[in-house]
Amino acid sequence: MMKEFAEYQARELPLIESCLRSRVEALSPYVRPTAQHVLDAGGKRLRPLLTILTARALGHAGDDVYPLACSLELLHSATLLHDDILDGAELRRGKPAAHVAFGSTHTILAGDALLALANTMVAAYGRPELTACLSDAILATVTGEIQEIAHIRDIGLGYDGYMEIITGKTACLIQSACQAGAILAGAGEEQVKAAGDFGLNLGVAFQLVDDVLDYASPSAVTGKPKGADIREGKLTLPLIFYIDQLPPGQKERFTKALKENILPDDETESAVAAVVAGGHAERTRDMAADYLLKARDCLDCFPDSPEKRLLLAALEGMARREK
Amino acid sequence: MMKEFAEYQARELPLIESCLRSRVEALSPYVRPTAQHVLDAGGKRLRPLLTILTARALGHAGDDVYPLACSLELLHSATLLHDDILDGAELRRGKPAAHVAFGSTHTILAGDALLALANTMVAAYGRPELTACLSDAILATVTGEIQEIAHIRDIGLGYDGYMEIITGKTACLIQSACQAGAILAGAGEEQVKAAGDFGLNLGVAFQLVDDVLDYASPSAVTGKPKGADIREGKLTLPLIFYIDQLPPGQKERFTKALKENILPDDETESAVAAVVAGGHAERTRDMAADYLLKARDCLDCFPDSPEKRLLLAALEGMARREK
Repeated sequence: MMKEFAEYQARELPLIESCLRSRVEALSPYVRPTAQHVLDAGGKRLRPLLTILTARALGHAGDDVYPLACSLELLHSATLLHDDILDGAELRRGKPAAHVAFGSTHTILAGDALLALANTMVAAYGRPELTACLSDAILATVTGEIQEIAHIRDIGLGYDGYMEIITGKTACLIQSACQAGAILAGAGEEQVKAAGDFGLNLGVAFQLVDDVLDYASPSAVTGKPKGADIREGKLTLPLIFYIDQLPPGQKERFTKALKENILPDDETESAVAAVVAGGHAERTRDMAADYLLKARDCLDCFPDSPEKRLLLAALEGMARREK
Repeated sequence: MMKEFAEYQARELPLIESCLRSRVEALSPYVRPTAQHVLDAGGKRLRPLLTILTARALGHAGDDVYPLACSLELLHSATLLHDDILDGAELRRGKPAAHVAFGSTHTILAGDALLALANTMVAAYGRPELTACLSDAILATVTGEIQEIAHIRDIGLGYDGYMEIITGKTACLIQSACQAGAILAGAGEEQVKAAGDFGLNLGVAFQLVDDVLDYASPSAVTGKPKGADIREGKLTLPLIFYIDQLPPGQKERFTKALKENILPDDETESAVAAVVAGGHAERTRDMAADYLLKARDCLDCFPDSPEKRLLLAALEGMARREK
């Protein structure tokens, strides 16, 4: 089934790209280059694909799904633009981040413009439930991001705090991507909720694996330097697992260094290796797999269809993905 | 009539403030302090007042106007938060700017949160025209801001470029404030357009006077240092008028220094004084008065009412305002 999903993705991508391109080209020339930069950097277009598949799985055949689907990608791109500034990241998907290429000013405003553009595209449907669905997601995403920043180098974050952060900053937008497709299809309350829950669980799994890849994947594959999270003081789940099992003395020294941002480079590197060697990355992947199982169960109330099967297929490779 | 307007404003302000406060208090504690900071800094609440007055003038009596009115103030506050970072301004209405008090990261994200909050509040009306009205305004505002930045120290900007910038960055949101009130009141197409045109002309006048005050008002009154625009290389109308009438040699020297950001402090100060002494601030105020006359004419299609008279009263003091 993974092959069928890849084929579907290959068929839909040109339609998604063409819709994205036409919308961004209509922006003022003052905003366009920065907006184009973040969209050209690629990405999997996971959110639009989920909107399209959910709408199709619930019986919506129209081409009018594309602007809605693309509004999700534009929202996502807007958060990436602002994120890049906050992180001070130099690279995004292996290319210079927008704030490096265009400066912070243009990047902040281009992010705002993409947010506004996405809103106008959703407003054009004349369906207030769609607008509410997307607005809630933006608010949750931003709140998750601030929460993450507030807990940088916070050794006491723990599992619950971490889960709250990744739900807000990543899973809620993926939840809305699926929910929006169901709303467009005119699905009933139960199916709209199920679509949202599917996306929420998928989104949590997606971020869990993302956080694993920061430890376990060579930077040549992800386009990001390995161990970035630990250097930035982000306590993601593999690191939380690792710290939890350290012997007391070592734990105290390590967390103190992490907290005060005085961990030497070689110890950072050996910690990254120890997280993987100790099975903490793998344990996080296992958790992601559990969330993917939950996501699968959410679709029980969907009628059988090729697109439902493709949504299920999307789950298959996710826990094991390497980029 | 100005007294009646001030009395109305004094009566409505507590209701506006209480609605703003309750919405911001519902934000996550991670976002709240920064959002509260920008709202506590005060401001005239011009946009909510215009939404309320327009809705009332067109026959809408319900209390449900307040969240809509406040969404306009939240959008405005969001742009102020992002603006402060872009300008690098240290002060906002005489108090430390948010990015000074909370850092750029929190300020960017709190701005995003206020944008999202405003969207959710408007979406809750279930009226797609309202959502579209607000989304268009955000896009125009952001585009105007980027355009302004793109023309910093651009001696060739000229009158048309300047008008395009202030229409985008200021007038479009005030246009939407009035239009939203008319839409909520269920007004017909002609009155909705008239309300928008009233706001647009009022908004242009408002910004023209703002740009005058940067030259003509003591900083103790505005809370901003005088001559900030010329120091930042913003070619606003008083300066454009001043440059236009300089003798050729002096014009070349002055614009070169402005363009290359090498104007000495004492020459900046004498230029600020010369703009005022030469009547260029006054000429800009006269233009603002013309736009206020245009705004007045827009309300011809409104039925007579106390609120229509208050909208007209709002125009009275504006051209002459000192802060």
